[in-house]
Amino acid sequence: MSGLSDLLAAIKIGAKTTPCKGAHKVRAVFFDTYGTVCDFYGPIKRRFERFAREHGVTCDAGAMAIAWRTAYALSTFTQAAKQTAFRPLREIQRENLEVVMKAHFPGPVSAQELDELTTVWDRLDPWPDTVAGLRLLKGQAIIAPMSNGNFIDMVNLARHAGLPWDIILGASVAQMYKPHPDAYLKSIAALGLPPEEVCMVAAHQAELPHAAGHGMQTAFIMRPDEFGGPVKPREPEAGKLYLSAAEIYPEGEWTYVTDSLVDLAEQIRRA
Amino acid sequence: MSGLSDLLAAIKIGAKTTPCKGAHKVRAVFFDTYGTVCDFYGPIKRRFERFAREHGVTCDAGAMAIAWRTAYALSTFTQAAKQTAFRPLREIQRENLEVVMKAHFPGPVSAQELDELTTVWDRLDPWPDTVAGLRLLKGQAIIAPMSNGNFIDMVNLARHAGLPWDIILGASVAQMYKPHPDAYLKSIAALGLPPEEVCMVAAHQAELPHAAGHGMQTAFIMRPDEFGGPVKPREPEAGKLYLSAAEIYPEGEWTYVTDSLVDLAEQIRRA
Repeated sequence: MSGLSDLLAAIKIGAKTTPCKGAHKVRAVFFDTYGTVCDFYGPIKRRFERFAREHGVTCDAGAMAIAWRTAYALSTFTQAAKQTAFRPLREIQRENLEVVMKAHFPGPVSAQELDELTTVWDRLDPWPDTVAGLRLLKGQAIIAPMSNGNFIDMVNLARHAGLPWDIILGASVAQMYKPHPDAYLKSIAALGLPPEEVCMVAAHQAELPHAAGHGMQTAFIMRPDEFGGPVKPREPEAGKLYLSAAEIYPEGEWTYVTDSLVDLAEQIRRA
Repeated sequence: MSGLSDLLAAIKIGAKTTPCKGAHKVRAVFFDTYGTVCDFYGPIKRRFERFAREHGVTCDAGAMAIAWRTAYALSTFTQAAKQTAFRPLREIQRENLEVVMKAHFPGPVSAQELDELTTVWDRLDPWPDTVAGLRLLKGQAIIAPMSNGNFIDMVNLARHAGLPWDIILGASVAQMYKPHPDAYLKSIAALGLPPEEVCMVAAHQAELPHAAGHGMQTAFIMRPDEFGGPVKPREPEAGKLYLSAAEIYPEGEWTYVTDSLVDLAEQIRRA
């Protein structure tokens, strides 16, 4: 996984620090989406399991879900670090899936099957608190995904999962993947707000320093099941996961820390 | 008004023709917003009337609403025709308002008053069929504003008027105002759909040839009260209005013609 860390390290983090709770009104809330708003692991694992059953074979569907997600992160972070041309995420996911299937799946997979499997990203499950939490937050501020999912990916997912976004922001707006600064700064500029009035919500500890570095408020939300957990803090086998278990437990100085978007809405309301 | 016609004439219209009803499935519906989805004339006229009352003066609030709307069209079409740098619509509206007030309002208007008056564009009224029609259409296709209103303008208006957009598209996506081709083409590209599967809805006859020229389906919706009407077709005094009364009655070959978004949803469902 050091490839991911190296890529992240190559992107300069701004010098600002995340504002304290209550220092500024929250006028917009931006959300990392895959993992933070929706569970990708469960739906993708189940999709691979069904695919294997249909082919009369077995495979480690959970490992495949993690491998695909890791490849997604590596591809988008590489684009951000090297500032190469922006390519649609759907294409990237399809290419990565082909590699994952070759490494993990016993038997051939057709082009049509790869196309169809890739659409699973349109049908992820919201976490149990997601829809209620987003509705509450929408009553207080503008809410928007700030994802590396592209415009069409976010629309498809919102229609499936009932996510009541005010607007779709993120990588598509900047034509640059997170954590490139443009992804954040152009999304903030789209609303004409100062960064201090925008709160970035993520379940990934590695993302929030980028948001804080641009002066945004930050909210860390614990999603201990994100990678098929539960994962204990800093457990030895954590290296198997995404960046590390450090990703999914709060260790930084964030404006808000929570385990539910419903609670986040309440914390912001009171701040 | 010839300035507007000349500007529109300077923008090349594509060679395609709008597809016939039923020739392609409608997977997304794009909407002109000011005038088509919301009434701007009534709310802006009432805002000017209130402002005049508060200042103990009288003014022709209806003429001011028309003048401001015409200046908006002239400013955005000029940007599209000359391909000058994209400036936020809010700034453009405020500058134009200052000119309108100097020409029509008896007495000084402060900078703060100009700022506040400009926000009336965030509080327009949906037409009576709008919200119900958009909900029905959202059940059948992706729905998005395709306006010269910027991201933040469309978010503010949607939150005020209850417009259940899936995504905000339009001028902001392309950083180019309508009817520049990029405004349409980049909004369509954001969804990855062929133009034939996207239907452009407008109450303005002059807009639809641009959409048709890119191969989009077209829906003309009659809004005879848009400019403070009712306006009779081709009535002699029509020259006082925006482009002309020809704008608000159907005279072209459009995929759909209607007077209600509820009816449009039904027509598309049956096609």
